Amino acid sequence: MSIDRRAEVVQAAAKSFAMFGYKATTMDQVARIARVAKGTIYTFFDNKEQLFEEIMKDFVQEILQLAENAIDPDKPFAENLHRALIDVLNYRKEHELFSRLTMEMKEIGTAAAGFGISMMEEALLGFVANAVQDAIAKGEIKPCDPKLTAYVLVKLFITLVVDWPALSGEPFKEEDVMRLFELYLLDGISQR
Amino acid sequence: MSIDRRAEVVQAAAKSFAMFGYKATTMDQVARIARVAKGTIYTFFDNKEQLFEEIMKDFVQEILQLAENAIDPDKPFAENLHRALIDVLNYRKEHELFSRLTMEMKEIGTAAAGFGISMMEEALLGFVANAVQDAIAKGEIKPCDPKLTAYVLVKLFITLVVDWPALSGEPFKEEDVMRLFELYLLDGISQR
Repeated sequence: MSIDRRAEVVQAAAKSFAMFGYKATTMDQVARIARVAKGTIYTFFDNKEQLFEEIMKDFVQEILQLAENAIDPDKPFAENLHRALIDVLNYRKEHELFSRLTMEMKEIGTAAAGFGISMMEEALLGFVANAVQDAIAKGEIKPCDPKLTAYVLVKLFITLVVDWPALSGEPFKEEDVMRLFELYLLDGISQR
Repeated sequence: MSIDRRAEVVQAAAKSFAMFGYKATTMDQVARIARVAKGTIYTFFDNKEQLFEEIMKDFVQEILQLAENAIDPDKPFAENLHRALIDVLNYRKEHELFSRLTMEMKEIGTAAAGFGISMMEEALLGFVANAVQDAIAKGEIKPCDPKLTAYVLVKLFITLVVDWPALSGEPFKEEDVMRLFELYLLDGISQR
């Protein structure tokens, strides 16, 4: 019973953050959406910061699960990674909460919103760094710093999937992203 | 005489933007720094937006000149580009105005500051796209979209020279940047 209430409160808070943003969300609002007394919320969470952290933790867990599910150990590194990152980006796009936070972060630079996003990025980076380490061990990619390589990889992906389409007004098809990924990071542009 | 006055006004405005930022700069302040009457400024510029655009135009010209000077047609693409980008980034770092604007842009997202930075980025991208086109023509790099490749290249450079050091707290030495540049973009990480 109390676990259900707690889950309801968290869900209501997620809804409120997604609809009104972090700053405009109040404990009153969360109570109204969850249809519980404000006192009930305080039996679980001291303030909205705690609620927010809880939500981000769940969120990161879901995204990591998604990325892990996309990995097939029998497939080459590039293919696995591509599928995992596409899934994560689509999930991110679909989830209002995330777009909301990204916008809020850009507009007013809320510390909590920034924290949420960097928590997410940390988790994603850790995941990719592990995949890179495995690929090095399997001899699929050259020896390199897994964490830096993961960082470069995620940045390249965001460049191709988010930044360039925003600049040029034309998104790539998934197969183009894959091809460009191979050209720019895996095979290199140098003519030999 | 009038050309000197104009140059003095522009220099004073650049000083004020660098010291106080775009938002806090007023025509009064510029007049005070330039030691001219406010009316004198208005004979050359209608408002601070115009002053700002003038300064950014000069700035972009200087940076492009710098990048062009770094190019030696007898050297390989990677080496030229590396030298050009290092010079540009150092120039950018040294120029207070630029750091000021970047900060202001991040904090309050001033439209004019954003415009200045994107003008700069446009110019840099155009320059790199030309260099890429030349390298394709010379058979140094694979056939590819020069503009997209320039974009990926500049983003990778910023990742290695600005973002990663900010995240990890450790800047790379110049020779490391060169080596990583080769690993990640020119030769690729794929093991063959």
